[in-house]
Amino acid sequence: MQQPGDVLALLGSYGSRVDAEARTFLERGPYAMYGMMRYFMGYADENLVSVAECFGGKRFRSGLLLLIADQYGALEDAVPLALSIELFHNFTLIHDDIVDRDEMRRGRPTVWKLWGSDHAINTGDGQLLLALEALERAHPARRDRARPFFLEKYREVIEGQYLDFELTAYSLNDPRTTEAAYLEMLTKKTSVLVGAATAGAGIAALMRDEELERLWNFGLALGRAYQICDDTVSIWGSGDMTGKVPHGDVRERKKTLPVLIAYERLTGTSRDEFAHLYGSKKSLSADEIQRAIALMNSVDAYGAARARVDREAGYARQAADSLAIPEVGKELLGSLVTTLLPRVTV
Amino acid sequence: MQQPGDVLALLGSYGSRVDAEARTFLERGPYAMYGMMRYFMGYADENLVSVAECFGGKRFRSGLLLLIADQYGALEDAVPLALSIELFHNFTLIHDDIVDRDEMRRGRPTVWKLWGSDHAINTGDGQLLLALEALERAHPARRDRARPFFLEKYREVIEGQYLDFELTAYSLNDPRTTEAAYLEMLTKKTSVLVGAATAGAGIAALMRDEELERLWNFGLALGRAYQICDDTVSIWGSGDMTGKVPHGDVRERKKTLPVLIAYERLTGTSRDEFAHLYGSKKSLSADEIQRAIALMNSVDAYGAARARVDREAGYARQAADSLAIPEVGKELLGSLVTTLLPRVTV
Repeated sequence: MQQPGDVLALLGSYGSRVDAEARTFLERGPYAMYGMMRYFMGYADENLVSVAECFGGKRFRSGLLLLIADQYGALEDAVPLALSIELFHNFTLIHDDIVDRDEMRRGRPTVWKLWGSDHAINTGDGQLLLALEALERAHPARRDRARPFFLEKYREVIEGQYLDFELTAYSLNDPRTTEAAYLEMLTKKTSVLVGAATAGAGIAALMRDEELERLWNFGLALGRAYQICDDTVSIWGSGDMTGKVPHGDVRERKKTLPVLIAYERLTGTSRDEFAHLYGSKKSLSADEIQRAIALMNSVDAYGAARARVDREAGYARQAADSLAIPEVGKELLGSLVTTLLPRVTV
Repeated sequence: MQQPGDVLALLGSYGSRVDAEARTFLERGPYAMYGMMRYFMGYADENLVSVAECFGGKRFRSGLLLLIADQYGALEDAVPLALSIELFHNFTLIHDDIVDRDEMRRGRPTVWKLWGSDHAINTGDGQLLLALEALERAHPARRDRARPFFLEKYREVIEGQYLDFELTAYSLNDPRTTEAAYLEMLTKKTSVLVGAATAGAGIAALMRDEELERLWNFGLALGRAYQICDDTVSIWGSGDMTGKVPHGDVRERKKTLPVLIAYERLTGTSRDEFAHLYGSKKSLSADEIQRAIALMNSVDAYGAARARVDREAGYARQAADSLAIPEVGKELLGSLVTTLLPRVTV
């Protein structure tokens, strides 16, 4: 039986394979634009000098793609697809950081913070194109199946960002601020890319549509669980857990699932106070953040959100068990589901 | 013999074919994100309601692609490629407008001006993906040849934008501010997309590499001539010619070819004054704009820049004459070269 630490180490080792590929893929001559990409991916420092240690993220999506592809014996064939997913994911982060005015990511200043938003917009655009060029390295049979699928899913991620803007602009008591709208946004903005990664593993292994469907279901449910879990971490987690400023989502009044749940459960003056905090036109102060969290705690918003995480996790486990992979692989995925969804102390 | 008006009308009619395609291609459900794309392309008003008349641009690149493809009898096969080029070009404009803080384009407010830069960044990202999805509509033999070529050229456009940022940041007397650096920037930022359009016509017609090379040479030279001409128009042209605020490039102290020429030719206090104006940290005032133009006029910077336009136009004509198309087609392209490069009154 795999231990949690083993699973993360394993995922990390697959991620390192993607990093090795991305590191050389982003070596594109002297333009600092490519240096900014390497900086953001964690392969270079602020002076664009290469660093041996990688300061990048978990490589969750691309690592997962390779881990699953390896269960089918298709590791090498999956590398271009994993590279594409990882470059695309990081492109979205470069642009998200501009939009969210996030100054730090993974403990380092963001691209716009260092080089300005003009460069950050443009460097992101270049990385998006490289995410698609990466697919050109795949075997044609895999490439031609992955490309239209990835293009569609990549655009859904952009739609998810659009929906996030909309939801952020609506007040908490706006009739358009619903749990369904939130879940549509969350699914598109983050979960479909996990689904693309898991289904991508099947494409690399030349699996049939039925298996791709099961892989997609696994990834989508895991992605939903992961994101709802991440939203709870963004409210209740410490800075150590996120690598970002703690309570960032509360400060920016993001109407994530725990917030919607809290608003539905709160009554009387508490409800009005909560709506007032989330109706603010500017970032919340430290005191306001603490008050908003206290109100959420008063109606166990964490517990309710966590129940949703667990439900999606159950779907993911079910889908994993139905895959045409060895039993040890299924155990591995089950262990991943548990490990990737940490509980927080409220 | 074609008259100038005929040639532009013909280019416009090919452009309309692209518009008809793009209009339906961008109908993607209720998200306002797609409405913003249709607005920017000129198919919808500020309320995202469809308008019959198109407020879009000249569709120069995509119209040219179809016009040339038609000379080979490959019009219909070229439509997805033309659609891709036009969507890509307009994606770059959506992002450029944010970066340049341009509030007006084609006589209408820009996307960031109406919906904010967050939406403009994201909507542009979505349109970039659609530019690549458009290629999926091409016949596989054409698609598979066009895709890696377009991906490379599209990324060179992003590199050109990067080089533009760099050049803008350097002072006029910085050793890195050279005519060679300017031409590299200009070639990548705008000319390669014209070359991609003309070569794309050959790809749609399944031409051999030799013909693609000639088409590329034609487009690249025409693109260079067109852009240097446009840079003269941005300095000396009226608002009617550009659809933008007159003298925009002077106001933003863009170091275009006429500026580099003027700085090289000016001497003594005039040279210092010119460097001082272009060394300003903020936009130039109306008086400063007039003074900068007067200094450029004192050394005939327009005449020298125009000579470069004419030289590139000569290369373009030479390449056009070498193409494997009917004589009438060659005459048409020659007439286009003349018509697309208007002289301005200095």
